[in-house]
Amino acid sequence: MTESTAGTATGTEDERPPAEGHEATILLERARVEVDPVLRAAVASLPGPLRRITRYHFGWENADGTPATGGSGKAIRPALVLAAASALGGPAARAAAVRAAAAVELVHNFTLLHDDVMDRDTTRRHRPTAWTVFGDADAILAGDALHALALRLLAEDTHPSAPAAVARLADCVVELCAGQQVDTAMEGCAPDEVTLDETLSMAEAKTGALLGCACALGALYADAGTADVEALDAFGREAGLAFQLIDDVIGIWGDPRRTGKPAGADLAARKKSLPVVAALTSGTPEASELAALYAAAPHAGEDLERIALTVERAGGRDWAQAQAADRMARVMQELARAVPDPEAAGGLLSLAEFVTRRTT
Amino acid sequence: MTESTAGTATGTEDERPPAEGHEATILLERARVEVDPVLRAAVASLPGPLRRITRYHFGWENADGTPATGGSGKAIRPALVLAAASALGGPAARAAAVRAAAAVELVHNFTLLHDDVMDRDTTRRHRPTAWTVFGDADAILAGDALHALALRLLAEDTHPSAPAAVARLADCVVELCAGQQVDTAMEGCAPDEVTLDETLSMAEAKTGALLGCACALGALYADAGTADVEALDAFGREAGLAFQLIDDVIGIWGDPRRTGKPAGADLAARKKSLPVVAALTSGTPEASELAALYAAAPHAGEDLERIALTVERAGGRDWAQAQAADRMARVMQELARAVPDPEAAGGLLSLAEFVTRRTT
Repeated sequence: MTESTAGTATGTEDERPPAEGHEATILLERARVEVDPVLRAAVASLPGPLRRITRYHFGWENADGTPATGGSGKAIRPALVLAAASALGGPAARAAAVRAAAAVELVHNFTLLHDDVMDRDTTRRHRPTAWTVFGDADAILAGDALHALALRLLAEDTHPSAPAAVARLADCVVELCAGQQVDTAMEGCAPDEVTLDETLSMAEAKTGALLGCACALGALYADAGTADVEALDAFGREAGLAFQLIDDVIGIWGDPRRTGKPAGADLAARKKSLPVVAALTSGTPEASELAALYAAAPHAGEDLERIALTVERAGGRDWAQAQAADRMARVMQELARAVPDPEAAGGLLSLAEFVTRRTT
Repeated sequence: MTESTAGTATGTEDERPPAEGHEATILLERARVEVDPVLRAAVASLPGPLRRITRYHFGWENADGTPATGGSGKAIRPALVLAAASALGGPAARAAAVRAAAAVELVHNFTLLHDDVMDRDTTRRHRPTAWTVFGDADAILAGDALHALALRLLAEDTHPSAPAAVARLADCVVELCAGQQVDTAMEGCAPDEVTLDETLSMAEAKTGALLGCACALGALYADAGTADVEALDAFGREAGLAFQLIDDVIGIWGDPRRTGKPAGADLAARKKSLPVVAALTSGTPEASELAALYAAAPHAGEDLERIALTVERAGGRDWAQAQAADRMARVMQELARAVPDPEAAGGLLSLAEFVTRRTT
């Protein structure tokens, strides 16, 4: 999942009671407090150099091994595991799912370490990425070790759902890899070689799969039936897709003062984001115009506003916003299906809203 | 584990009955036949592009997706899993352990895919490595997917030992990563910065750990007690170390007509192999001479025989041969401890001898 620093997207947030975002913040903080000791113990079991790379990546240490503060990420996935377990199984299920929450966070961080190597990303959580500090080999190996630790943490769990959770998390890793594979392959494609279905599938695999898996694991630890497990998986997936659609809209039309990124940065990078691919495949005259603009090499001083306007005129912005709204409707439907009691569903709902409207 | 094409090492093979090597060949072929369908089914479950990269890596397909023949490797680790299960639990345990054997082979191949990226190795099993054909990202992602498939295969196994097997295999992955981390770090070290203990630990982690884990998993699937599981782990580890010591001796003094590598290739590459580090840390006058020779940049026409002779005079060759003999003695001890009946132990013994004296 892209850890962008995107700003808020929907225009409705001011109408909502502030307590909602506040509830998510509390859930995230509580998840962090519960999961951190398990995470730290797992990382402490690694041999010296792998431990050091990992502790740097998590933001617990500086590159020289001195303690660092902050920057561990927002614990969205662990919070989803715990909220799902709690919604379907109450406090006992929530307590039982802490290991699973840590395992999901380990998998997330394993993929971040590897994705940063592949994408040559140099910054993560406002710090230099692990590969820029320790080299490619160390970052790949630390990722491999976190992957193994994640599945080990679940395997040594005596909860009856643990074997199903390992299988589900391993399947999710395969889907994450497939999503990243398509993403890197698409970067080398010409604008007319990419379909909208393919781009949506890629976004679902890269962004939705692990959010869905987090919710499904929480349901498994609450001994939920198959239908509820699948409904919560779909809930997380749709929230992930809604997030990605909104994030892509912000990447083109977001206010630089709120996003912290220059206007049109995604267009300057010729990113094949969802609104852009929707525009390119719209069959409108603007689609051809956009393809020509995208085919030209990026250059300083190019008219990014014109490209943005072309995406908009080709319907890319409207499509993305309608899709995001549609996905959010499905988020609500799947949640109501698995957790009919609105009070029990409150935590998951506030996290889904946080994911799709997060400000940092 | 280094898949070298080294020749035989000990001078004793001609004294042994040919049936021994023959028995190993039969065990390897039988393991390949039993494990291949499970491996192929696991790989078939991958999404398209990851499946293609993996099928290429396994030698089942050419780069263009057409079927290929041969080159899948020798199935040593699956054969060890099955032989250990058979030795301690008979045919039923052997049959139960086929999934575990496939999981070990998947882990082995995941590490090969990643190690080739990190080491920039361009040839594996006489074919271009996956990263040279598909790029770094695809090779890393295919490795990640095989890692997940391996643990999934064990997690969905209903055998009572499966959870312990997942935990043990995950621990082994961490050790493999740690070994590879030290190996890549040591490459950048000056000759006087490397200790012999560190080099032995690295070789044990890189080469011994997975052979030991393979034997331990077989024992677990035979419902063996802790002492027997640990004895078989030690058996595999010591066999791995004996192999590495012998392989390193061959890398310096092996007959190029038998090894297929130019004489002294490891010295020309300034490899800090076990005999070299033993010589460098011997405290002899030849140690300083060797450090100076190793510090000089490799150049065409350099006197590799002189470097080899210096390693030998510093005691590196004798040390390595004594160590290898000592490790083989421990291989026998650990095997006799876990499997006192010589007939039942025969398969494991012939595989250990094959590992340490293999010719291709």
